[in-house]
Amino acid sequence: MSKKISLSGIQPSGKPHIGNYFAMMKQLVDQQEEYDVYALIVDYHAMKSVKNPKVMKENIINVVLDYLAIGLDPEKVTFFKQSDVSEHTELCWIFDTITTMPYLMRAHAFKDAQAKNKEIDVGTFNYPVLMAADILLYNPDIIPVGADQKQHVEIARDIAEKFNNNFGQTFKLPEAVIMKDVAVVPGTDGRKMSKSYNNTIPLFSEYEEIKKIVMSIVTDSKEGIPKNVYAIHNLLRPATELLPLYESKAGKYKELKELLIEDLEKFIAPLREKRKEFAKDIPKALAILKTGGKKAKKIASLKMNEVREKIGVNVYE
Amino acid sequence: MSKKISLSGIQPSGKPHIGNYFAMMKQLVDQQEEYDVYALIVDYHAMKSVKNPKVMKENIINVVLDYLAIGLDPEKVTFFKQSDVSEHTELCWIFDTITTMPYLMRAHAFKDAQAKNKEIDVGTFNYPVLMAADILLYNPDIIPVGADQKQHVEIARDIAEKFNNNFGQTFKLPEAVIMKDVAVVPGTDGRKMSKSYNNTIPLFSEYEEIKKIVMSIVTDSKEGIPKNVYAIHNLLRPATELLPLYESKAGKYKELKELLIEDLEKFIAPLREKRKEFAKDIPKALAILKTGGKKAKKIASLKMNEVREKIGVNVYE
Repeated sequence: MSKKISLSGIQPSGKPHIGNYFAMMKQLVDQQEEYDVYALIVDYHAMKSVKNPKVMKENIINVVLDYLAIGLDPEKVTFFKQSDVSEHTELCWIFDTITTMPYLMRAHAFKDAQAKNKEIDVGTFNYPVLMAADILLYNPDIIPVGADQKQHVEIARDIAEKFNNNFGQTFKLPEAVIMKDVAVVPGTDGRKMSKSYNNTIPLFSEYEEIKKIVMSIVTDSKEGIPKNVYAIHNLLRPATELLPLYESKAGKYKELKELLIEDLEKFIAPLREKRKEFAKDIPKALAILKTGGKKAKKIASLKMNEVREKIGVNVYE
Repeated sequence: MSKKISLSGIQPSGKPHIGNYFAMMKQLVDQQEEYDVYALIVDYHAMKSVKNPKVMKENIINVVLDYLAIGLDPEKVTFFKQSDVSEHTELCWIFDTITTMPYLMRAHAFKDAQAKNKEIDVGTFNYPVLMAADILLYNPDIIPVGADQKQHVEIARDIAEKFNNNFGQTFKLPEAVIMKDVAVVPGTDGRKMSKSYNNTIPLFSEYEEIKKIVMSIVTDSKEGIPKNVYAIHNLLRPATELLPLYESKAGKYKELKELLIEDLEKFIAPLREKRKEFAKDIPKALAILKTGGKKAKKIASLKMNEVREKIGVNVYE
């Protein structure tokens, strides 16, 4: 029996932190044993915010190295980028013609963006339609998403149904699977770990960087247990093990921080070293992406041929 | 010196009438001597209104036969359809990310459509952006358009400028050339010839059809000259020749109508026969379209590679 298909989009948006790792990256890689995984770098979505070609290029290369370093196995995962498979934008247009303006204007992301800035671009508005195409081209069974992305999978399902109803069964309706929420990964100040709060621990930190960050954590404590130190530590060790340890060393902030540094280094060092290995031969790493693109293109072009046949534009024998 | 490039979009929207011929079709074919012409069947635009695959397919086949019949020379013209060149929709997406919502909402066609129906589709809104991609992929010098389409060329120019300013010189700014307005082609009732007025003379009419239509023209006259008959006749013969003839036969409506039937038949018969010839071997006619698609694809993919390089998504050597 063939494996079920899972598809995830990956934003090429700079240096990941351990919050990104636990909330999303690890969960994606963990899936590769159980599912047939499509891992899609969404560079065409990223165009909405990245208008600098140098930054775009670096971001793509970095995200490839990041995922290879954390153990994404290109033998098991179709690892590719949107801009290598033109069928994504082509199907997006077809879907544009069956999606109404009022429907798409109800999308949360659009309403949020518009609340902040009236001058948003058409891509930000049309984004859920491209995402529907990203998904539906590959007949996935599940889409692992954060809670805030659930609506996008619903939009993809709505569009798939509308297309199927009008042109005949073509697309499978995928299920959204809500991932462990990124909000549960605490930053160094106890708030959600996020670049915008400047409270992150970069995933591929050097030892000195880890040390500096952990030592600067403010030790608000409850009965001598520094809660921000504990919360991060808890990502690496279960409470059953960690709580007795912290209780036995209550008030000894420096010592507890040193223990966290040690555990973080144990966790990060192998990933960091693996990333450095991949970074030594970037063309080789990118060849993996290119191969993934060819594999994805084959699947996507079959589906797109089916779509062209269904809508009546394939006039050739 | 190489010829200047001209690009025209062709709607695959059913049976043309002589109004379409004089307003647009003839002007396109006349250009093939002077310009390097791209004649693009916009089937992906047509998706907005044609949701029936059988109708879509027939419309595409018919429009190919129509243009071959009126003398489009595939040796001189790149004759192709949008759905054979995925670069159109791909570039549309790139442009979506640099075009703002308020800018695009100012487009006349969108405002008109929205005034009629709030439930318009995203394709109708995004249409000028796809049209900008249709145009800019081929570096055309001129775009022959009806007056009502002038704004679309302006939008293409604006988008080209915005892209060039941000990513470096990539697109040539095309000039709109306003064609003889379709409004000057009168229908059988004196109003503009239009399917919606049911006052047309189909371009490839049979003799009996021509006869029936002309005989039913209402002969509102001025000093014995039936003005609706005269106006149509004037498409085929200059006033210097026609006016003396009508004056000499003032009041003789039946005779004047017979003269018009004769002239229409002289004009239509060779086109009709040529169309029948092409219709005998539809796969052969479609092979012309397919070849045009391959030729266009070559040009479009070079341009799209340039775009991918400029925006930074081409990470491969």
